[in-house]
Amino acid sequence: MKIVIINSGSSSIKYQLIKMPANEVICSGLIDRIGLETSNLSYETKENRIEEIMSIPNHKEGLKKVAQLLLDEKVGVIKSTSEIEAVGHRVVHGGSTFTHTVIINKEVKEKIEKLFDLAPLHNPANLEGINVAEEIFENAKQIAVFDTAFHQTIPVVAHKYAIPNKLLTENKIRVYGFHGTSHKYVSEQAILYLRDNLKIKASKIISIHLGNGCSMTAVKDGKSIDHTLGFAPMNGLIMGTRCGDIDQSIIFYMVNSLGYTLDEVNTLLQKQSGMLGLTGFSDLRDIEANAEKGNKDCQLALAMNAYRIKKYIGSYAAALNGLDAIVFTAGIGENSSYIRKLVCTDMDYFGIELDDAKNNIRSKTIREINTKNSKTKILIIPTNEEEEIAKQVHELLLS
Amino acid sequence: MKIVIINSGSSSIKYQLIKMPANEVICSGLIDRIGLETSNLSYETKENRIEEIMSIPNHKEGLKKVAQLLLDEKVGVIKSTSEIEAVGHRVVHGGSTFTHTVIINKEVKEKIEKLFDLAPLHNPANLEGINVAEEIFENAKQIAVFDTAFHQTIPVVAHKYAIPNKLLTENKIRVYGFHGTSHKYVSEQAILYLRDNLKIKASKIISIHLGNGCSMTAVKDGKSIDHTLGFAPMNGLIMGTRCGDIDQSIIFYMVNSLGYTLDEVNTLLQKQSGMLGLTGFSDLRDIEANAEKGNKDCQLALAMNAYRIKKYIGSYAAALNGLDAIVFTAGIGENSSYIRKLVCTDMDYFGIELDDAKNNIRSKTIREINTKNSKTKILIIPTNEEEEIAKQVHELLLS
Repeated sequence: MKIVIINSGSSSIKYQLIKMPANEVICSGLIDRIGLETSNLSYETKENRIEEIMSIPNHKEGLKKVAQLLLDEKVGVIKSTSEIEAVGHRVVHGGSTFTHTVIINKEVKEKIEKLFDLAPLHNPANLEGINVAEEIFENAKQIAVFDTAFHQTIPVVAHKYAIPNKLLTENKIRVYGFHGTSHKYVSEQAILYLRDNLKIKASKIISIHLGNGCSMTAVKDGKSIDHTLGFAPMNGLIMGTRCGDIDQSIIFYMVNSLGYTLDEVNTLLQKQSGMLGLTGFSDLRDIEANAEKGNKDCQLALAMNAYRIKKYIGSYAAALNGLDAIVFTAGIGENSSYIRKLVCTDMDYFGIELDDAKNNIRSKTIREINTKNSKTKILIIPTNEEEEIAKQVHELLLS
Repeated sequence: MKIVIINSGSSSIKYQLIKMPANEVICSGLIDRIGLETSNLSYETKENRIEEIMSIPNHKEGLKKVAQLLLDEKVGVIKSTSEIEAVGHRVVHGGSTFTHTVIINKEVKEKIEKLFDLAPLHNPANLEGINVAEEIFENAKQIAVFDTAFHQTIPVVAHKYAIPNKLLTENKIRVYGFHGTSHKYVSEQAILYLRDNLKIKASKIISIHLGNGCSMTAVKDGKSIDHTLGFAPMNGLIMGTRCGDIDQSIIFYMVNSLGYTLDEVNTLLQKQSGMLGLTGFSDLRDIEANAEKGNKDCQLALAMNAYRIKKYIGSYAAALNGLDAIVFTAGIGENSSYIRKLVCTDMDYFGIELDDAKNNIRSKTIREINTKNSKTKILIIPTNEEEEIAKQVHELLLS
């Protein structure tokens, strides 16, 4: 069964063609900077790699271009779009409506649209991807996999806010949680790794997803029981340009006493804060390089970032009443030995002991970076949201 | 040396007359509902207790009434107001300006006024108390003790927010922390108790102040290193009517999508949220009574309250990389065996083991409520902000 996975952002489309159940990636790529004169298109198979800069005015033209490449005589991998049995779409916000992966129909699309308010940056782009894929892969089943679904097991004690009840019952304001596909994937991988390699029946895991967005999940017996992102993907850990947790009274103060408009505050907290606001850089590699050269702002920002992760490890160890393993994943989590080192320093109370040498080895595989005696295991697990989506699509079609 | 302690709120004045260094409370009392026809006045000495309902139009009339009682032939305790050497004032917000207790002069009053924006509910009432006390106890030194001062040791990694740097450098937006007088008092008492009674040299303590306002402090070697309340006394734990921590994106959503004004949201989060918003009751005794009768909202609200305290215990155990003792204090912390039980259940990973029988004994003294084998000690320490203020006033005048 050939499945196309589409992760559609506001100005980008990430895609893969995966053969299931073999889990074989036949091709993958990215279209970026959609709407600009200088859009990027990449397309990679086992034999070929193409990178082009061209004008791609919208998602439809982008996906048409991908279909052309898939069908191309020289670099193509299929003879007809009808070979594609299903298209799996990442949809960021499923609200309380979607607790599982679903086949997309008119009603599902209407419900995804109703959730635009909850994820104004993400859901409209996801729906656009669905609409375009329906035209291009017209014989395929369109299937939605929701980032929030994994977190639907978070109990009410952790997903409810201490605000008047009607805001939950009528307005659906609660913790939804995000990056669920990634947290599900890596926590399952962690459980398998610990069982098969270390004969540890791990049930208390904290997964730490550090990428463009950053979040942590407390996972008990394979289920999400708490998560750092709440109603929208803005709070919790410090992110590239998002502030993460702040005292909300700052918002009232900035408007009432400092003369900001509410929209200006929103933009400032979403786009000018986080690591960018603290250092002037938004790419972590620049921040680490400058910290190593002695830049105090960069050193402090990295220390703040790690301190907050440490505190959430403690917090979730309390929610779990124990801790078997912590898992680092996503771009920064997989690649920044600097951040991992800061996070794991002075955490022996939690049985966390980093092996510096192991931490400094670069690799793309699952690996342990704790010392031999570390009571809590420290794992790096490369995330693979596309594989997880393909798995869920495949399971749904077989069921 | 006779010192009057004044804790002036928007519609109340709590006062004590304390003889130092003996630490002897000569009289104490409260004026409540100032500005109403039915104000309450209480006045208590070793021999007498007076409770009156009368009209007290403002703070000045209230404090005049107290002075009359202090001087009264029958129930009075002094012959002249000139016997009072100093008046110690609780001032809630000292900003970055006041890191220590200070003698009040014109400049200090101007600076307290400059901080009105940061604590609009508290600092104006505190300054009103100072102005009135200057008139009534005209020969006494007026001294300000700041709630924020104890938290000035919180390191930058914990007191800075991940927002653009200029908001800290120019606008002084940071974690200030509150209830500092209480946290300082009980953490010092805890260190003494553990040293003298259990021969434990405790350096890692978490103090849990649960009263009208609620907060927790991580105390290392006697110094505050982190705290749940931030820029203003609104976030962190769930309070009587305040929401504590929420995802700040909720504020933007309520204004942009639900049609609230920003002021309405502020009022809702400060006055209609917390335990009141979750249950319809703001008094914890009512909530506990109803929970015991089977009211689901009350049960959930108490569970949410405790869950958040547990998570902060974990969080601060990470900040401290260890934990010697947790301390419950203030009205709810000292009296609610129900909340303490919920907080200490399933926390054995942190060496926290509650002794149920000890937890259920009511007493006004410092006590241990952990089991014999509990690695982390659980203490109840009645707070005494007035005693702490008197101590600081006395020390300042002797120095």
